[in-house]
Amino acid sequence: MDIISSLSDLRAARLSFEGTVGLVPTMGYLHEGHLSLVSRARAENEHVIVTIFVNPTQFGANEDLSKYPRDLDRDLSLLRPLGVDVVWTPSAEMMYPPGYQTWVEVEALTHPLEGSMRPGHFKGVTTIVAKLFNATQPHKAYFGQKDAQQVAVIRRMVVDLNFPLEVIVCPTQREADGLAMSSRNKYLNEAERKAATVLFRALRAAKELYEAGERDAEILRIKMKEVLEMEPLAKMQYVSCADYDSLEELDVLKGRALLSMAVFLGKTRLIDNFVLG
Amino acid sequence: MDIISSLSDLRAARLSFEGTVGLVPTMGYLHEGHLSLVSRARAENEHVIVTIFVNPTQFGANEDLSKYPRDLDRDLSLLRPLGVDVVWTPSAEMMYPPGYQTWVEVEALTHPLEGSMRPGHFKGVTTIVAKLFNATQPHKAYFGQKDAQQVAVIRRMVVDLNFPLEVIVCPTQREADGLAMSSRNKYLNEAERKAATVLFRALRAAKELYEAGERDAEILRIKMKEVLEMEPLAKMQYVSCADYDSLEELDVLKGRALLSMAVFLGKTRLIDNFVLG
Repeated sequence: MDIISSLSDLRAARLSFEGTVGLVPTMGYLHEGHLSLVSRARAENEHVIVTIFVNPTQFGANEDLSKYPRDLDRDLSLLRPLGVDVVWTPSAEMMYPPGYQTWVEVEALTHPLEGSMRPGHFKGVTTIVAKLFNATQPHKAYFGQKDAQQVAVIRRMVVDLNFPLEVIVCPTQREADGLAMSSRNKYLNEAERKAATVLFRALRAAKELYEAGERDAEILRIKMKEVLEMEPLAKMQYVSCADYDSLEELDVLKGRALLSMAVFLGKTRLIDNFVLG
Repeated sequence: MDIISSLSDLRAARLSFEGTVGLVPTMGYLHEGHLSLVSRARAENEHVIVTIFVNPTQFGANEDLSKYPRDLDRDLSLLRPLGVDVVWTPSAEMMYPPGYQTWVEVEALTHPLEGSMRPGHFKGVTTIVAKLFNATQPHKAYFGQKDAQQVAVIRRMVVDLNFPLEVIVCPTQREADGLAMSSRNKYLNEAERKAATVLFRALRAAKELYEAGERDAEILRIKMKEVLEMEPLAKMQYVSCADYDSLEELDVLKGRALLSMAVFLGKTRLIDNFVLG
């Protein structure tokens, strides 16, 4: 497993590869969710590149960039058994040198949900992902369904900009009690960690209504809110029942839909989602 | 020479290439300037792709998109003797299908000069060039110095977004009387065509001052204006003496500088430039 920081070394490594290349872009502090992406990439490609880069441009001014958890040694020890060819760990100074001034933006899909709560977030995401795609030239790139809107936005960018690659979306990995795995779970204290299952419980409650035949989107949103409100440590930011492709809020469910939410546990902001249909 | 319109056929052709690929992106209605790019690409690469696409998103609402000259048969007959492997002629509907919503933007470099006169122009340019790069995956891409700011903007985009390719800039091709070759020269009537040499004459006059030792940028701008004002059919839009890399207007020339201008001859807008130093 080569651990590479410079772009020129990455390019040299990439040029040495024959056959298909799978890319797993990460911000490090890896958990089972990331590792499931790596395992799938390993199974489906002749070479696997994992990138570890905490991308400053996708964090808002008041967000957790400076305290975002980092532990490269731990990350590398988790990746070593998985047969990764290259781990690329570029620096922020290299990715955004003085004079940097180019941005990739997706429009409508980035406006609701996370986009409305985190202005500029997706501009940072699409820009860094375009850079990672160009730097690594993958045949397939692996993302987790946990970040549902990110997946929708990146799929749109790939089609719109004619990137010659396939986006592979992998299921959300969960703890035994249902909490979606996230590097940010580390921020939770014991009580918050216990309360954090409320996202999963709210989604599950709405899904049960759906499976019982409910197709009124507002009733599903209300059910999610009700469950969240029963948890005193949780503070809802939004709940959504939206079209899976357009991310527009639904009145009536037909076809694939996305239940999603953002919830604060103390100062920690968590997101989760279920796909229906 | 394969003439291809679909993206899937282009991708198949691209996958069949071994060795280096040179890309010459054009809007068609080819002239000696384009052909010089193709010849250089042919000399430097194992395969050459020429794209012909009049990109609607780089034209303003009041610009000449609908009447921009088109003659595919003529273009193809000019390209055939040059050893081009593939000519890609995508449609606007294919490049910007319903739901299209992704844009690539370069910031500071697109603000002055052409950017200030043609709002949105460079957003269209960088977006389509990114799409063409992704679709054709070239090792080298060829652009003419005639569009000096476009060259600066695309070079910046390539570095910023980590495109794995080299931008090759080729000299402006000129008619015998100095007029820079441009597909838009076709719009000029006889009197305008004769008057159009004023851009070249103004640039040459400023360059002569520079070569005689003048380093005051304002004096060079004034000289260009004086020459333009002597031509009754010409109406200056801007003249500039700017830093070659930043495109910021200069007070004093040191290092490489760009003399540039936009001038109307009747309804036809022409641009031209000289590089100094």
